[in-house]
Formats: sequence, C-alpha cells, structure tokens
Amino acid sequence: MPPETQVTGRPMSLRCSESSGARTHVHTPTPLIMQAIAERLRTARPRIDVVALPDVTGWHVDPAGNLRHDSGRFYTIEGLDVLSAPGRPSAWSQPIIVQPEIGILGLLVKEFHGVLHCLVQIKMEPGNITTFQLSPTVQATRSNYTGVHRGRTVPYLEYFTEPARGRTITDVLQSEQGSWFLGKRNRNMIVEVTEDVPVHDSFCWMTIGQLHEALGVANLVNMDTRTVLSHLPFDVVPERSELLDEDSFLGALARSRRVAPRTRQSLTSWFISAKATREISRQRAGLRGIEGWTSVAGHLRHSDGRFFSVLGVRVETEGRETTSWSQPMIAPVGPGIIAFITKQIDGVLHVLLQARSQAGTFDVVEMGPTVQCRPGNYPDSTPPFLADVVGAPAGAVRFDVVQSEEGGRFYHATNRCLIVEADAGFATDVPDGFAWSTLHEISALIEHGHYFNVEARCLLACLNSLWRG
Amino acid sequence: MPPETQVTGRPMSLRCSESSGARTHVHTPTPLIMQAIAERLRTARPRIDVVALPDVTGWHVDPAGNLRHDSGRFYTIEGLDVLSAPGRPSAWSQPIIVQPEIGILGLLVKEFHGVLHCLVQIKMEPGNITTFQLSPTVQATRSNYTGVHRGRTVPYLEYFTEPARGRTITDVLQSEQGSWFLGKRNRNMIVEVTEDVPVHDSFCWMTIGQLHEALGVANLVNMDTRTVLSHLPFDVVPERSELLDEDSFLGALARSRRVAPRTRQSLTSWFISAKATREISRQRAGLRGIEGWTSVAGHLRHSDGRFFSVLGVRVETEGRETTSWSQPMIAPVGPGIIAFITKQIDGVLHVLLQARSQAGTFDVVEMGPTVQCRPGNYPDSTPPFLADVVGAPAGAVRFDVVQSEEGGRFYHATNRCLIVEADAGFATDVPDGFAWSTLHEISALIEHGHYFNVEARCLLACLNSLWRG
Repeated sequence: MPPETQVTGRPMSLRCSESSGARTHVHTPTPLIMQAIAERLRTARPRIDVVALPDVTGWHVDPAGNLRHDSGRFYTIEGLDVLSAPGRPSAWSQPIIVQPEIGILGLLVKEFHGVLHCLVQIKMEPGNITTFQLSPTVQATRSNYTGVHRGRTVPYLEYFTEPARGRTITDVLQSEQGSWFLGKRNRNMIVEVTEDVPVHDSFCWMTIGQLHEALGVANLVNMDTRTVLSHLPFDVVPERSELLDEDSFLGALARSRRVAPRTRQSLTSWFISAKATREISRQRAGLRGIEGWTSVAGHLRHSDGRFFSVLGVRVETEGRETTSWSQPMIAPVGPGIIAFITKQIDGVLHVLLQARSQAGTFDVVEMGPTVQCRPGNYPDSTPPFLADVVGAPAGAVRFDVVQSEEGGRFYHATNRCLIVEADAGFATDVPDGFAWSTLHEISALIEHGHYFNVEARCLLACLNSLWRG
Repeated sequence: MPPETQVTGRPMSLRCSESSGARTHVHTPTPLIMQAIAERLRTARPRIDVVALPDVTGWHVDPAGNLRHDSGRFYTIEGLDVLSAPGRPSAWSQPIIVQPEIGILGLLVKEFHGVLHCLVQIKMEPGNITTFQLSPTVQATRSNYTGVHRGRTVPYLEYFTEPARGRTITDVLQSEQGSWFLGKRNRNMIVEVTEDVPVHDSFCWMTIGQLHEALGVANLVNMDTRTVLSHLPFDVVPERSELLDEDSFLGALARSRRVAPRTRQSLTSWFISAKATREISRQRAGLRGIEGWTSVAGHLRHSDGRFFSVLGVRVETEGRETTSWSQPMIAPVGPGIIAFITKQIDGVLHVLLQARSQAGTFDVVEMGPTVQCRPGNYPDSTPPFLADVVGAPAGAVRFDVVQSEEGGRFYHATNRCLIVEADAGFATDVPDGFAWSTLHEISALIEHGHYFNVEARCLLACLNSLWRG
C-alpha cells in the first residue's frame, strides 16, 4: 500500500502558470491539465493488474476469513449479515469494507484577481478507469494527520488540521458508499487562505468555473472532489440574478436557490419518520463461508454473478518515484445509474429525493438520488423512476456524464450521472420514500452530516455545475 | 409493564379551566396543578417498592444473562464492553439499557388570546422521586405509533404521526442518557394546532411562562418535557428587546440570542475534530459474569459501590384504573451535578460546552454541559470546573434546581442543575475538549440531531427559562 497521498512523476509544466507574471491568469488552463494527465501516464507508466486475492502481497486472511493488511492498518474486508425491515423485509450477507477511521477530504481555495481558485491535484488511484483524476488538495486518512507522521507525509495537510490556517468555509462529516463501506465517513472541508501558497508538483489552481466545466468530462473529477464541491455555499458561487426572471431551466434553478424553506419541516419530518420506522440490523461476520458468495479464480463473487466481486489489484509505477503495491478492491458488476428527476413546481426547480437504507449506511437512512442502482442487479424488476430517467427525451436531459467512484477502494466503479427535467405532466404526488426539495433547503441541510448520501452529493455538484454561464 | 402512556385516577378539576368562559385564562393556574398532583397521589395511592431482580414478574434472564421482558418488547438490560481512546485510554464493562426503537416526545402547542400554550400531562413514572411530574403531551414508543395499535392507545398521538395534524415547529432526533442507554434516541416534536383540542383527564394547558416558572421547582418538569422545551425557537419566545441595552446577565443573555454565528465554523470544526480523533469501541456482551459487577441481594452493583445499580421495582396503583407491574431499572449511586459555566465575552453571554463521549453515545461525541458528573464516582480526583461550579459565590449562581432524569427507566435519578456566571477573571482560554458558544449558535445547531446531549439540552431549557420577565 502506498502513502495515501503520493507524488509521482517528475516536475512538469503545471507549476509554470503560477509564475507567469502579474494580472495573468493563475489557473492552469484546462488543455494544459489534460496534457499534464497524459504526461503523467507517459512518465509513470502505471501498470495495474487484476490478480487473485491469494496473490495480494502484504495482505492475509485472518482466522475469521477476513482480508487484513499485515500491518493492521488501512482497511479490512469483512462479512456482514444484514436484516432490513419493514417495507420489503429482506436479509442478506455481503462482503463490506471496514475502515472506521475518519479521514480528511480538503479543498484549499484562494481568491486571485477577485476569482476564487481551488488547489487541485492530479492523482492516480489504481481503481480509476482513467488512472489519473483531479482530486482535492488533501485526501488523508486519520493516521496521516494524527500521531507521529502529523503533517509530514501529506502536502498541505497543515491547512486543514486544528487550528485551520485559513477561514474554514465547510467542515462536515459525510458518509461514503453505503453499499460497500460499513459506516465510513470523511470530513469534507473547504478552507480559504489569503497567504501565499506554494504549488507543489502535480498540483494546480483551477477556478470553480473550470471545475464545473470539468464535471462535464467523463471520469475526470474524482469522487472526493465532487463531494467536497457539493458543499460550496451559495455566497461562494454568486447569484446570477439575471436568470431570476427567465422562464427556463436555469431560471428555475436560480429561483430554487432562493426559495425560503417553506417545506423544510416537512422534509426533515419525512426524513426522521423514515429513520424512526425503518430498521436495519447489521452483524459483522467472518468472510469465510459467507452465504451466497463463492470464490472463483481467486475472486470472491456473488453466486448469481450480481452486485460486485472482491478482487486483488497489483500496481507498479515508474518514473521519479517508482513504487509498487497490491491491495484488495471491490469491483461492481456493470455500471450504475444515479439520477435526479427535477421538476418546475410554481416555477421553482425541485429535486426528487429518495430515502435510502443501504447495508453500510451510518444512521439507518440518508437522502439519495431519485434513482440509484446498477440495472444489472435487477433482472426481474425495475427500480422506481428508472424508466423515466433512461427514457427521458433528449431535450429533457440536463446532465448526462459518467463519473468514477473512489479509485482507492473500488475497481472501475462508474455511475452514469443523469439530471432530467420532468415535464408538467409528471406527478407531483410521489410514492412513500420520496420527497421533493429545493436547492435552498438542501444547502441548509448539507452543512450537517448524514442528510445526503455520497451519490446525492455527487449529483448536487453536477447540478450546481449547470449554473455556470 | 403498563401502556407507555397511562391515564390513572378519576376525572378531576384540571379540565374545568377550559370551559370557564371566553377571554378568561385557558391555562390551569400553577397552584391548581400542584393541587391536582397531590390529588393524584391521594387517589392513585401508588405503591412503588424496590425488589430483587429475580422477583421482577414478567421478566427473565436470557441465556446470555441479559434481562428481557417475557413478551420480547420494551427494552433489555445487557452488558457492554467499552474501549475508549485516545486522551485517557480506558476500558470498562457495564450494564446498559438497549432500546433501539425511536419514540416520540411530542408537545402540542396552541395560541389562546395571543399567548402560546402547551398541553401537558400529569404523569406517574415509577422512578420519579416525586412520583407525578409534568410530561409532554405524548411520550410514545414506536410500537405505540406503528402497526396495529396505531393511534388508539396514546391520546393525542395523531397530532404527531404522519402527516402531522398541525404546523410542525420542531422535529428532531435526539439522544438520551449515554451513560445508561446504548444509542437511544427519541423524536423531539413540537406541533402547533389551531383547531379545537379536547382536554382529556390528567392533561392541562400551561403557558410557556408557566412551564419556565415550573422549571424553578425541584423535580416537577420531567426530562422529556425539558428536552422538548430546549428546542423552542426564538420566534416562539419573543425577543425582550428592552433588555438588549442592559448591562446585566439578562442583557447579555438577550444579546447571546442575537449574535451572528461568527464562531460557528470553529465550533463545528472543534466538534468534528473531536469525533475524528476520539475512538469509542463497544461490544455488546452478556450481562452474566460482566467484569466488575456483582449481584448483591438481588441487585447488580459495581464492585466499588460506584456508578449505579440495576434493581427491580414493583408498582401498584389504586383508584379508577388499578394497575400493577414490575420492571428492572437503573439506580445511580448518589445525585449528579450538571452545570453550565457562562461568561460575558464582549457583553455577550457565552456558554462553556464540553465534548463528551459516554458508553452509549450514539455517534462518538456530543456536546455536553461544562460539568456533568456524579461526584461520588470520583473519590480521588475532581472533574474539570467542578470546583468553580460548586464553589461559585451565591451572587453568581443564576439557576440551582434539582431535576429528575427519566422516571420510566431510572430510579430516583436526579441532577442538581446549575447555571453559574463566571466573573471577568475566569479564563476565556479553555482546555482541549471545551469550547464557548452563544445561544444564537446553539439554536441553529439544536435543530439537527446529536449535537447536544440530553444533559446539555436540559440546561438549555433551564437557561431559556431565565428569560421570563
């Protein structure tokens, strides 16, 4: 296993933009970033091979059959028995990643010439379908930021540890993929500085507009960046008041940011009701002999071939910092779909949220997208609203880009991210478990942890990206 | 075990005030309420005896040694092994109440003649040191409000179930005593109605001013009422703007409600930091042979005689609805102290909060009072700030009243509730684990669950009660 934040490859052109003289742009132009990613691929020559679990060096199977790093660090992959009720009471067992430590996903922002810029890293993760993606300034596990290694191994970490070196704009504990992680969460932080910040190799400044544009490119902005971006307060992305009177999607979006939380109590009541009436009981169990899962060619698979498999990955890189390691990962079967159905109600854009309970959900229920599924897992049925989303007419599709899930734990895990605008005929009355909200309301709740799951936060970042001019 | 909300005794004078003609007061005058409580005691003649655990009818010891109701309902008392780190790493085992169901604590409010009134019940709980106390309109477990018994057994429940029959002012999931409950929480709800509400036997309307006054009487307002009251939004208890220029405690309190959350991010960062750096690992274990605990005369006690014991209680009442039952309860050793140290900083009242992790805390840490302890548990040491609180000069003590903890689970559990105003010499720099806040900031966070523990919420209700004229 590598250090959590690693700087590979030799110094390259990314830094140059910082020294190109007064009044010029500080951000690295997007073509240069794409070029830098290509250069990384060329110099680091990362070689990422899928291997059998017994061939994952440095990891062993413990007496309960769980996968564990020899150092005891990082994470384990264990078995979980799940019982969920009521609604469709169901019981199942599955492998799950256990990583109780709380890490930091930190984005450093700074104003240059009146424009807010974000310090972004070009970072490799073995599970990334595109190998290198744009990550936040810091992705650090707790062992990186406490104890003996404090502040030494992770560049820029000191801006996010206590006391923060700048103005903390966002600091909230948010969950990650409940299907594959047991109660995992990270601090999502945005810190603004005014001091000079050295730009290390593989880092660059991007404007928020640039990042929003990059969200339109498949598998470019990584999950950690997307979840942090979903917290950007409205005063950081200023109001485009010229849109407010427009009879358009963007006009309805502009008004959605403004509408007082008239429905606030009923949304939170709906949410708390779901917490109070649903039950999910979980029992950690050994991975050995876990029901419904079998080892095939050294990978752990569901016996129906559905859901995901647990496999091994071996990584080798060249260049300035040669490194190699192996690790187990979760590889979903087929791509997923996550989608918001939006609708103008009284001229205000509303987003349709779903109360979701997953195996690893930290606190019973979080609000997720309207649709969140891997269609391949439903051979005999169709999740609610999936047909509305995939069958939406082209003119109603406001966003449609494939994005990657966390490449440090998940292998080639992608979701097609869709934002669809429903027409006036779409029923405002929705089934149990669904509720409408506005961006105003969402932005008030997202400051607090565990309201929105990572898939909903990703789509919120995508929805906010449509705001750009 | 009785129905969770039971109506005992015969019809009495409480209702009369409702029919006493237009423009008269709707609330029941406090002397009449005190009289009604005395009358209840006289007619119900509750007899509450402490008994040995084996003599608790209807309960049995399961194979793991845990205490369980024969029906499988209500709650269990189990063993818990706790490991907490870092700071003072410690490991211990203790009995704990397991009751994963989420109940409703609901207060129905209605405006009469421009004054908000709360519908309160005079309710008996076997653990109450004063037997009858003032409870919220509804105290219901989940089995009361879902399934077959929906709305039939608990009066007024229909005002709080979905969809609420009135305007929901507050609906938030909050935790209860982390020392004795494993992750227990209830919905704290305030619902305002405009329709006519029948006043059933043992219920009466009280103004918020009356309830605030009642908080000044020892063991009168029960814990459930106090936690719900702590959520009263400021617009429900109007601003007393005449105080804003006063150079007094109340003036500083008035300004504390107004100060914009300048320190908001740093308070939440401090809180999230505590969550991220502390660890508490818990393993449910059988109560049989739990380390450090022994059975003495049929009660389970800590071998040092500290903390609490688990004992049995047998209840018999007379009057119109004769009833009897037995149940196990937790009885703390000696009274506790919970206290806020407050201080005027730049003329604004600040409250000193402590990040607390207890055995049963739902999510690692919650914000608690400055001081929260049973001094008898610390024979060889003194918790931080305890001396400042108990040694405060009389003129600095703003509130000093003994209040009861939940009488349905805890036997004669009381806390001396203190609010002390520190003088200018009191250090504003506080140790790790403590932070200052204002009421403005607190009121923004208390709308969301799991920021403040039940002891802090109780003191907030007491602090708000000082606001009355």
